[in-house]
Amino acid sequence: MYSGRVISLDVDQVEFPDGSVGELEMVRHPGASAVLPFLSDPEGEDPQILLIRQYRYAAESYLYEVPAGRLEPGESPDVCAARELREETGCTAERLTRLTTVYTTPGFTDERIHLYMATGVTRGESHREADEFLEVETMLLSKALALVESGEIRDGKTALTIMYAAGFRVGL
Amino acid sequence: MYSGRVISLDVDQVEFPDGSVGELEMVRHPGASAVLPFLSDPEGEDPQILLIRQYRYAAESYLYEVPAGRLEPGESPDVCAARELREETGCTAERLTRLTTVYTTPGFTDERIHLYMATGVTRGESHREADEFLEVETMLLSKALALVESGEIRDGKTALTIMYAAGFRVGL
Repeated sequence: MYSGRVISLDVDQVEFPDGSVGELEMVRHPGASAVLPFLSDPEGEDPQILLIRQYRYAAESYLYEVPAGRLEPGESPDVCAARELREETGCTAERLTRLTTVYTTPGFTDERIHLYMATGVTRGESHREADEFLEVETMLLSKALALVESGEIRDGKTALTIMYAAGFRVGL
Repeated sequence: MYSGRVISLDVDQVEFPDGSVGELEMVRHPGASAVLPFLSDPEGEDPQILLIRQYRYAAESYLYEVPAGRLEPGESPDVCAARELREETGCTAERLTRLTTVYTTPGFTDERIHLYMATGVTRGESHREADEFLEVETMLLSKALALVESGEIRDGKTALTIMYAAGFRVGL
């Protein structure tokens, strides 16, 4: 139906598990990686993290997000995570730890996003793409969790990455 | 560009915060609700919940999910959550508690999903749509959290709803 810069849209004739056939709209996506950078020891009392505030046309506002972006052709998820971290925030990390991988919204897209946390982070200059408008913000992990609970963090992958890292890796 | 049964795709000329102009692919979606049903007291030791296993063409497999679906025209998120719970699992709930609302993947869609938990649940017969293939499965909340941690729960909204309810409502 459509093949574009980021996504393509197919309307597929699909066979369901019972053998019946139907039409399904499917947005094809190359997949993405996202990474939560820890600026202090994640084993510490209440570690400091970094988030971005990015302008999103879909939301007509700025959203708190973890650094993230699409896989380039042939790129592995961990290389993508390190690249997006560097491009969006200027940070480099000694270590990326994979958290999990989820389908963002499997009713209409095959997009999967690979979630990471980054430790041993060194800050530097960012190199944003021309259409990326974002600011970098540091905060305590406990504050980020409070923003998830209150709904001020409104991006799904960001809420999930923060809760996953805090609950299963940091123990906060 | 395309207007379909579930989604439509626009390629918009957008003005960015610095006044520059560019093209953006945007999947328009009516929004959705999802609900985690508690079969026992959520204040109890390790409450029992209900998940569905739904065939997803996007994943070419069955995914563990919370009952969920699209808002009908004019439908409020809580009415949608109760309807999807009833249609997909046959359950009715005395009480729906709103958890939070997130953008599923704001880089290319305006879809927002409203997350709920349901308590005081009575089980009954399900009424699935013709293209829904799913099974209902009960498990302890601790087991669901373990499946999120291990990555066996691969649906973003489901991982988020389970972690949010367990972390901020149940205290598990």
